[in-house]
Amino acid sequence: MSEIKLLSARYLVPVLPRRQVLRHHSVVLQGEKILELLPTPEARSRYPQAQETVLDDHVLLPGLINMHTHSAMSLLRGYADDMDMQSWLQDRIWPVEAQFVSEQFVVDGTRLAIAEMLRAGTTCFNELYFFPEAMLEVIRKSGVRVSMGLPVLEMPTVWSMSAKDCLEKGKKLFTDHAENNRISFALAPHAPYTVSDESFRIIAQRSREWNIPVHLHLLETDFDIVQSLAEYSERPLQRMDRLGLLNNRLLAVHMTQLQPADIDLLSERGVRVIHCPHSNLKLSSGYCPVAALLDAGVNVSIGTDGAASNNRLDLLSEARTASLLSKGQTGDATSVDAFTLLEMLTINAAKALGQGELLGSIEPGKWADLAALDLAQPETQPVHNVVSQIAYAASSRQFTDVWVAGKRLLREGELSQINLAGVLRDAESWRARIAAYGT
Amino acid sequence: MSEIKLLSARYLVPVLPRRQVLRHHSVVLQGEKILELLPTPEARSRYPQAQETVLDDHVLLPGLINMHTHSAMSLLRGYADDMDMQSWLQDRIWPVEAQFVSEQFVVDGTRLAIAEMLRAGTTCFNELYFFPEAMLEVIRKSGVRVSMGLPVLEMPTVWSMSAKDCLEKGKKLFTDHAENNRISFALAPHAPYTVSDESFRIIAQRSREWNIPVHLHLLETDFDIVQSLAEYSERPLQRMDRLGLLNNRLLAVHMTQLQPADIDLLSERGVRVIHCPHSNLKLSSGYCPVAALLDAGVNVSIGTDGAASNNRLDLLSEARTASLLSKGQTGDATSVDAFTLLEMLTINAAKALGQGELLGSIEPGKWADLAALDLAQPETQPVHNVVSQIAYAASSRQFTDVWVAGKRLLREGELSQINLAGVLRDAESWRARIAAYGT
Repeated sequence: MSEIKLLSARYLVPVLPRRQVLRHHSVVLQGEKILELLPTPEARSRYPQAQETVLDDHVLLPGLINMHTHSAMSLLRGYADDMDMQSWLQDRIWPVEAQFVSEQFVVDGTRLAIAEMLRAGTTCFNELYFFPEAMLEVIRKSGVRVSMGLPVLEMPTVWSMSAKDCLEKGKKLFTDHAENNRISFALAPHAPYTVSDESFRIIAQRSREWNIPVHLHLLETDFDIVQSLAEYSERPLQRMDRLGLLNNRLLAVHMTQLQPADIDLLSERGVRVIHCPHSNLKLSSGYCPVAALLDAGVNVSIGTDGAASNNRLDLLSEARTASLLSKGQTGDATSVDAFTLLEMLTINAAKALGQGELLGSIEPGKWADLAALDLAQPETQPVHNVVSQIAYAASSRQFTDVWVAGKRLLREGELSQINLAGVLRDAESWRARIAAYGT
Repeated sequence: MSEIKLLSARYLVPVLPRRQVLRHHSVVLQGEKILELLPTPEARSRYPQAQETVLDDHVLLPGLINMHTHSAMSLLRGYADDMDMQSWLQDRIWPVEAQFVSEQFVVDGTRLAIAEMLRAGTTCFNELYFFPEAMLEVIRKSGVRVSMGLPVLEMPTVWSMSAKDCLEKGKKLFTDHAENNRISFALAPHAPYTVSDESFRIIAQRSREWNIPVHLHLLETDFDIVQSLAEYSERPLQRMDRLGLLNNRLLAVHMTQLQPADIDLLSERGVRVIHCPHSNLKLSSGYCPVAALLDAGVNVSIGTDGAASNNRLDLLSEARTASLLSKGQTGDATSVDAFTLLEMLTINAAKALGQGELLGSIEPGKWADLAALDLAQPETQPVHNVVSQIAYAASSRQFTDVWVAGKRLLREGELSQINLAGVLRDAESWRARIAAYGT
């Protein structure tokens, strides 16, 4: 039998059951999983030998799940700001990526991103970038959980010669790593305008056969629509539907160009929408109508996008913006309330990944992925309402402890598996190299 | 001669001259003021006896200025969320205020707010709440700088019987405290719908005679317009203009209901606009068109509003939202760029307060109000662009040191003039009292 541990917290928000706030409860961990939840005195008497972590000032939450990021782009944080999406991409990001992105860049950048994400209570991320095999090495050592994208683009990249090459590399990766329980995969066609019908058909088929999600930039800006009408004489959603992609395995990222009929279609097909409000605002891409999607029963979760367009991998502030923006856009201040915001960061994300039975809430039998937020700070006092403090007041820097599969990866603010000084040194070294190349 | 001190920072953004970033420079302080800026080696050789604070990992900024807040409402943080503005105010906030707001409430709440603001790099705030005389005691001890509102409302409040009473109390306060160089005043009529023409006329006259600003909630929601048309048969801006309020001493807060002609009028009259994006979004009040105002030459600065509607007194994240929202609303990703965002938090605010010669930039002769932000964190590395890291990446929790008039009020993250444990205890005690009253 695996070792029993107790995490005893002043407040506990399990997410399921919905809107429940427990006080002075303990989560009982057995190895990598959650065994049960008990009032702390009962937990202590039932498990007198268990090692206990006391979180007297904290609220314990399910680990947050970042549903869209390009981790290694953290090395390009602040490299190009205050530009629209197409100029940002074509004039700044693609040229610097072509010059610098390599296995080592991806290793160093992913490690930097994981350091930031763990410190912000993130235990799992849905990744999409080049050199996934190199990322997986970093991820395995770091102890974090990932849904790794298997990229597909037609044009040559630093990592691949063609979509065919991408698909072969992806198949090998999926086959080699299928056994690790912290690593899952998603097929990751870059966007409708960079992937052909033929490749999309293969992706749709694999997604069905392998039973894994498809992670796709979709309707990020109106460029998607203009390009699709010009090349395919149909709108991107109709094209994706024709190719068999619109189903409950599709993770459709951005979705800023939706019309009311589109929302009905997404709802019927069970498509999962990933909202990245900071990136969409910063690149002035458009607005994803979160409230209308939720009202139509669509699963919406939150991504930070990469740090080159955000510029933070900070899910609490990301979701807070999603809520505030929805209230502002709809004129309805009750829209995306504090608890809904928390669901988007946890259980909605878990379900979207097809892992709703294993992640996204603090329930018996789920992976012990947890994050503790210290509320005994002037920024989050007094605590009239615990969920409100999480949603509308706390800073991500108040996360002190994070566990993934029962392992404590952040301990009283210190990363246990990552050498932070080394991470910062590597980041500075990449900055110097990029600066020498010119901006 | 006052003691000389050196603050030596890796990066220094003086704000004026515009867009300048200095590296390895020292700010030379003489007593309460800035004497000069020098490259660090030169500063050391010129002032070999000076006490030096070395900020190797930091960017040094002018202290941030919060242009609209109700400090004591921090005790109501999270007390009422996910409600529209009028329900929030009438059903939740006004009743609890009537029950609990007292001198002691204001003392404890203001101290909590100052703790939060100093930790977030804020050195000065433009305040509007009841019991200003009690607040001034706390503020004097805390060492922070304030523009204290002298509230005016017609109806009876916990603090005043009538507008006449408010105006008398305000006159006494202004007369008693005029000598303190960290305390300035503003006349603070609550809103057009709570103040009569007669009171506004007295306020306009005093503002001219005393040469101090008028701090006014204006066009927060469309309720202002509906009410004004019904009662005065004119729109609020026209009424304020008729009463002599529209001039460069008016600090017009919120301004979410502007039409293009209004913007021209504000520009002609030199009115200063204070934008509170989080509060406006959270209460779904409307949108202040920052980009159009700035384009018309209007001075725009940033306020957090009170923590009961925000729920944070965090200027960096507030200004970041102002920038992102402007990019989103205008469809122009170059709108409110990183440096403009920093200007709104510093020099624009100083000018709006009529203190542009004394505050808002790191220049010789100005008050030594400064804030140091530690960039050697994974969240703000690598530093391709210093101003971008401040604007789009840094957390307010990265401020480690803050000086007001040369005095170090935050030292390596610790408040020097405020007993934080006592502040948190008092906050919890108010929570318990309010909870006992029922919600």
